[in-house]
Amino acid sequence: MKFCSNCGNGDLEYIIPEGDHKHRYYCPNCDTIHYQNPRIIAGCVPMYEGKVLLAKRAIEPRYGFWNLPAGFLENGESPEDGALRELFEETGAKGEVNRLHTVFSLPNFNQVYLLFLVDLTSEEYEATTSESLEVRFFELDEIPWKEIAFESSTFALESYIASPSKEKVNLGQFVKY
Amino acid sequence: MKFCSNCGNGDLEYIIPEGDHKHRYYCPNCDTIHYQNPRIIAGCVPMYEGKVLLAKRAIEPRYGFWNLPAGFLENGESPEDGALRELFEETGAKGEVNRLHTVFSLPNFNQVYLLFLVDLTSEEYEATTSESLEVRFFELDEIPWKEIAFESSTFALESYIASPSKEKVNLGQFVKY
Repeated sequence: MKFCSNCGNGDLEYIIPEGDHKHRYYCPNCDTIHYQNPRIIAGCVPMYEGKVLLAKRAIEPRYGFWNLPAGFLENGESPEDGALRELFEETGAKGEVNRLHTVFSLPNFNQVYLLFLVDLTSEEYEATTSESLEVRFFELDEIPWKEIAFESSTFALESYIASPSKEKVNLGQFVKY
Repeated sequence: MKFCSNCGNGDLEYIIPEGDHKHRYYCPNCDTIHYQNPRIIAGCVPMYEGKVLLAKRAIEPRYGFWNLPAGFLENGESPEDGALRELFEETGAKGEVNRLHTVFSLPNFNQVYLLFLVDLTSEEYEATTSESLEVRFFELDEIPWKEIAFESSTFALESYIASPSKEKVNLGQFVKY
């Protein structure tokens, strides 16, 4: 942040406001404190008859790697709705939320993944979409582990395979030291 | 958002960028798209020997109402860490995360609560803090339902009482029509 989004002032201060405990961008011109917070990535583990639907990314980062359908949650949207929207956008498939499956946080990147176990309502999907080079089902013993895009997906898939009927949410984290 | 936080330009456009599906603030001067996303509120249901620890809010909104300890997740923090930090700030108590208990979303307010079931490590807490007018334990049959600050707390407490050992996350939502 270089300029105040409220008044346009370019002389922002980076201070700990009174009563606070963290540094914030502060505009002395209009007295606005600019808070910055982690973002939610909503996604899913989409299952149909024991197979998981994965999408090969058509966008950076990790172009060409396989991933669980997921993307930034939008304002005005619940995480469940966001997960089903991303599923449809990336794979053309539809489903129903069974339960929240994984919460995977990346504190260094200010991201929190909320991944739902989704029961697909049919076997239908699009072989490619604008966001995916390729979409297909994988049996759980043929997941291309070395070609998975992100730690969050690896963690959720490993957790699912270790205990498919576990109801307790899997809490995972990737910390860069 | 009135001014571009990247270049200070005050002539922002509110458009659907190419390939997108939602309106965003866009700066034609420096070609920046400004995304705005929901924020996470991390908190907990803090339990000790069957009693729940609540805090009476010393800040607006809902000044003077009882609430589960919770607050905005910070950059650089995992939801679990955020929940324990808020617990300590608001009540002076310490505990350990047992499991994720409730995800309660308020799409109209662009907020998602992540409330963890926390086992307090002792009965110790502060009777007042800078954020709480009063802190105390409640037996589950003496919760002051009409004096609870937010729907998210009511939902989490009701879900806990209905099924204390349920491991599946309770998914709740408040939508303003």
